[in-house]
Amino acid sequence: MDNYYPRIKDLREDHDMTQQEVAEYLMMKQPQYSRYERGIRDIPTDILIKLARLYKTTTDYILGLTDNISTNK
Amino acid sequence: MDNYYPRIKDLREDHDMTQQEVAEYLMMKQPQYSRYERGIRDIPTDILIKLARLYKTTTDYILGLTDNISTNK
Repeated sequence: MDNYYPRIKDLREDHDMTQQEVAEYLMMKQPQYSRYERGIRDIPTDILIKLARLYKTTTDYILGLTDNISTNK
Repeated sequence: MDNYYPRIKDLREDHDMTQQEVAEYLMMKQPQYSRYERGIRDIPTDILIKLARLYKTTTDYILGLTDNISTNK
């Protein structure tokens, strides 16, 4: 899996959220969201942005480019 | 265009690079790269990461989530 980003699972669990809850926030079905967590589908940029906002982190953190979890704004 | 990120064009021009040069760096053809700049194709995460590295910036800057161009590492 070229585009596997395990941090979206870690962030979800750190926020005590279920896949169902995150899927609802993203306005999609749980199985679709699940494919992002498992690295089966690449995360589209609009979803990446929504996840960064949900978890108050950066897209760089989600993508593993930085270990700094906090926002860079 | 839902996923239009004009900064990848601005960054390329600020670095005095042609679409052809950036496309070669990304190991793709120029017309394919051009579709990202024009917002016709969403930017896949692996390309987003390579562009951030090329321009020594963050994916957050490319996606317009921050105006801070410098790296957050």
